[in-house]
Order: sequence, then C-alpha cells, then structure tokens
Amino acid sequence: MKCRVCREPAVIDIRRHNANFCVEHFLRLCRDQVVKAIDRHEMLRPTDRVLVAISGGKDSLALWDILVALGYEADGLYLGLGIGDYSASSEGFARRFAEERGLSLEVVDLQEEYGFNVPEGARAARRVPCSACGLSKRHLFDEAARRGEYDAVATGHNLDDEAAVLFGNVLRWQQDYLGRQRPVLPAGCGFPRKVKPLVRLGEREMAAYCVLRGIEYMVEECPMAVGNKHLGYKEALNAIEEQSPGSKHDFYFGYLDRVVDRFGESAGRDGSDIGTCARCGAPAGNEVCAFCRLLERVGGADPGHRSEPAGTGNRTSVSIGPTRVGTTGGVTGARQ
Amino acid sequence: MKCRVCREPAVIDIRRHNANFCVEHFLRLCRDQVVKAIDRHEMLRPTDRVLVAISGGKDSLALWDILVALGYEADGLYLGLGIGDYSASSEGFARRFAEERGLSLEVVDLQEEYGFNVPEGARAARRVPCSACGLSKRHLFDEAARRGEYDAVATGHNLDDEAAVLFGNVLRWQQDYLGRQRPVLPAGCGFPRKVKPLVRLGEREMAAYCVLRGIEYMVEECPMAVGNKHLGYKEALNAIEEQSPGSKHDFYFGYLDRVVDRFGESAGRDGSDIGTCARCGAPAGNEVCAFCRLLERVGGADPGHRSEPAGTGNRTSVSIGPTRVGTTGGVTGARQ
Repeated sequence: MKCRVCREPAVIDIRRHNANFCVEHFLRLCRDQVVKAIDRHEMLRPTDRVLVAISGGKDSLALWDILVALGYEADGLYLGLGIGDYSASSEGFARRFAEERGLSLEVVDLQEEYGFNVPEGARAARRVPCSACGLSKRHLFDEAARRGEYDAVATGHNLDDEAAVLFGNVLRWQQDYLGRQRPVLPAGCGFPRKVKPLVRLGEREMAAYCVLRGIEYMVEECPMAVGNKHLGYKEALNAIEEQSPGSKHDFYFGYLDRVVDRFGESAGRDGSDIGTCARCGAPAGNEVCAFCRLLERVGGADPGHRSEPAGTGNRTSVSIGPTRVGTTGGVTGARQ
Repeated sequence: MKCRVCREPAVIDIRRHNANFCVEHFLRLCRDQVVKAIDRHEMLRPTDRVLVAISGGKDSLALWDILVALGYEADGLYLGLGIGDYSASSEGFARRFAEERGLSLEVVDLQEEYGFNVPEGARAARRVPCSACGLSKRHLFDEAARRGEYDAVATGHNLDDEAAVLFGNVLRWQQDYLGRQRPVLPAGCGFPRKVKPLVRLGEREMAAYCVLRGIEYMVEECPMAVGNKHLGYKEALNAIEEQSPGSKHDFYFGYLDRVVDRFGESAGRDGSDIGTCARCGAPAGNEVCAFCRLLERVGGADPGHRSEPAGTGNRTSVSIGPTRVGTTGGVTGARQ
C-alpha cells in the first residue's frame, strides 16, 4: 500500500478516492479538502473571525486545528450540556486542546448559566434529548457569535453527518429542511453566518486526522444519542457505502449540485417572519424564542433576567489564551 | 393478538398499521389496499383488459389473484429468461397457478424466440444482468400488450420494491428517473399504460397473502440478482423500517404526494423524441430500439426477421384456458 502522492508506505486508504496516503499527504489532503469546501461554497474570507463550536470530539477539534493551520483567526466555544460524565470528559478534552496550543476557548455551562441541563430540558419540554440539545446549542452559539462579533460560526459536521441528515430529511421529504440543507447558511435577520468546512471529509478521516496529529478527543458517542434515528441513518448509509464507495459523497454533493434549488430558491433567510424575542432579544419567529420557551418549561432562567444581582450568578465564562470573547457583562448587555 | 376488525385471534401483525389481522380481514385488507391504489392513482377502469407480468414469484401471482378477485379481465404473460433452474422452476409455478384457476397464461421463451438468454445477453451487452433482463422484459411486455390490445400492463412491484428504487434514484439524484417514478405511467407514443397496483402493500404482506390463499410461488430470489444494489437498498430501508415502522410508506408516498412534480411536470411522455424502431416497429428513442440493439450484440434474431421460414421457428406461445393473447402469426405481423 503506497501513498498516491509520493509512493512511500501509506498509512490510510480512502476507498471513495480509490487511493492510499502517507501521514504527510493524508494531513495535506484533509487541509486541501477544507480549503476546497471553503472556496467552492464561499464559506469564509481570509480575514474572517471564526467562532468554532467545540464539543471535545474529533470533528470539532480537527476543524479548529485545520482552521488555525490555514491562518484563520479561530476561537472556540464549548457548551457544558450537563450530560454527566460525558460532559465532564468532553470539556476536559476541549480545555486541554486549547491550553496546549494557546488558543482562546470560552466555556459556557448550561446548568450554571441557565439552571438546567439537557436531560432535564428534554424531559420538561417533552422533546427527545437531541432536539432540546440542538435547540440550546444553536441559540447559545448564535448568541456568542453576536456578542463576540464573529463573522461566522463553524461547526464540525462532516460528510457522514451531512449525508445522514440529508437521508433523514429525504425519508420524510421535509421540504423546508431540504431547502436549507447547504454547507453555508448566510448571515441574516440577526443570525450569524454558519459554515461546515468538513463536508468533504468523512468520519473515519477525521478520526485518523486526530490520531495522526496527536489530538486527544472524546471517543465515546453522547449517551443521549444512542439509538437515535440519526445514528440509524448513518448505519444504513454505511452499508450502502461499503457496497459502493463514494455513495455518500455522490448523494450529498449530487444534491447540492443539482437538486437543492428545487426545494428552496436561495440559501438566504427572507426575514419576513423573523422578529425579536421579547425576553432575550435574540432573533425569533415568535414573540418568545424557542430557547426562552424551553427555559420557561424547565424552570430555568436567563442570567440577564434573574432576580439576584448579576454578580452572584454562576457564569463560568473561561478564556484560555488571548481572550476575544466578551465577558459576562457583555453577554447580559447583548441580551437586554 | 387480536384482529383489529373482528377481535378474533389474529394471524399477522402489520407494524406500520400498528394492527393485527385474522385471515379473513388480512386478505380483505390486501384487496382493499389494491382497490385504494387503483382508485387513488387512476390505474384501471372496471372494464379494462389487463396483462399481468408474471414471474412465478409471490408478488405477480398475488397481484393476478387479486385482480381476478376484483373482477378484472386479467391475463398473464410469463417470460422464460433462460436463467437455468431458476427459470424452469418459476415457469412451473406460473403454469400451475394459471392451470388450477383456468386463467389464460402466455409463455414466451427468450432462448427459443430470440436465440439468447439473460446471462448471455448481459455478457454480450456488457450490462449487469438485471439491466439486460429489465430491458428485455419491458420490450416484450410492451409488445405483448400491443398485439393483444390490452389496456394496461400490470406489474407486481410492491411498496418495498418502489421504496428501494426511489432510494436508489435519490442516492444518485437521477432526476429523469425521479420524474417518472409514479405508480402509473400513462399510455402514449405506442407504449401501453403501466400500472403497479401493489404499491400500498409490503413484501412480507405479499408472502403472507400467498401462504394464506394457498398460492405456491417461487421463493428463491433470482440468482443473477444476488448482491445487486437494489437488494442492498432494500436491506438499508429494512433497517430503517425496523427502527421506525411506516418509514418506507412515508418515504414513497410522501414523494408521490409532495415531491415528484418537482422533478417532472407530468407523468406523460411528451413523445417529441419517440419514433419507430427500424427493425421491429416498436416505439424507440433511436433508429433501432434498445432491445434490437441487444439482439444484434448477442447474435440473436427477431423471429419476424429470421432467414428460416416462420413455421420452423421455436416459438412456444402457450395458452392455458381461454386464449386472448395473439398467436405467433399475430406477433410476427405486429412487428413487421
């Protein structure tokens, strides 16, 4: 097994590329694929300040690593979701990654900041955990990007993730989701731009990238996600990919190249139905945003609206290395 | 486990209906689902003469049984594809079914009529067997419908089949196929109407229908199809269905209800590119139809164009019961 580029011994084969790579050229391939994704989909300008959504898993840490290597000004934001040991371990991986590299990581703890965790939130809202979690993450990343004045939020969704989401949306023909499933969602109506620079790289490649770069990451899947539909879609697509390498790539990029426009005229938000949340000031389709409705059901509170003085709040906004993210005061201000 | 209708002991559960049924009400359900499919998609008028494509498997025999039970004038056509023991056994099941019920079955043997079989045809055409087979079947069923002046050709494609085909088309986003994937293809340009009355019934239900009706059928899958992509798609969807009963139904009917029109304005053939095959007279997109091109590559011959006198041909057109299908002379005439 020889590297396609240099003919030296290879360490990994990528069946959908029908090629093998040595360490050096595999790492270069990963960076090149990120560059290609960013260019083709006009995700980022070279001077953009990027907020990277960090989970402590392989994808988000590899993404952060690559964006920094490519010269982007990229800070991390980790959300403590309160999912027992899983969250504690994940946070450790995120903190160590940032510390060792002198990168700026903000940590926001849902329990300490808002008085609830994902398992409680899901129960109170009678949602599946992944739904309450996704809602909270979107809200808090958007908010952090606004107050930190970042140009974009980057998430570590890889090809396997996106193909599985597309498969789920196709299985139910959820046309509104289908129209919006693009690797870039432009800024608009108070929402920051969202980009997914890893869409050209698979799950296995991201794990290999971390191993070869010496990045330690949280290997375990989130215990709340076990048995969820998304993982079922991944397994189904893995079986197809095994039979026909390249199927996931063709499915996802065929959709972007030829079909997505049939489901939505443009990637933009038209804004006609977006106002401002009466409680937190975030952009919202209703009078009160979905996150504040979740807060209400779970009996939690927005720290900006708690009865006790702001100084007694439990916010543990932590920055390691050069701090670019706003402080607690800034957050409260932004919300009011 | 009690029957949803009569509360007597049930013999089958159908998870996507979240219900169990006794023999009587399960058989009624199957017929009702066929009636519903025929009505909703305007497949057949009560007086239509229907040619049923018979393979000897559970779906085609159950379809024939149900159409006759519903009062349709339905004859069968079996094609001997020359796939060794598989074809010999399948033909036996088809013949016995027709014989025992006094139904009219025509048998056309590819080897005897056209001088090749599916394995040879696939090799010569460098196509996968299922492709050469499908091409031959479409051509010969269309032709038989024309010469027999049938109003429609009915095939036994069930919900599992259609969902798997849709999945395959979606995985590659084959937009031309997607636009045409409907349970009815209207007649036009010399092609007969094609209908799929079993689209509301799953594979397992069709097997149960045959067992409960005492219909003996060819259980084995076609040996040429083993390991093909279509079966892989079925397995992937089965895993999804296991997790979420009703997924296949929602996938297929959601597509028909809300999405198919995005891929094709209408189900009709516009005919702008359809002429007549210079060799056999069938409608064709090119000067020579795909079947005659296959014949040429395989070194076979259309019986209407063989050098030996027509009377010496090997055609074994067999009718059991009242004969409505044209004879060899009729066939040759129709082709010239």
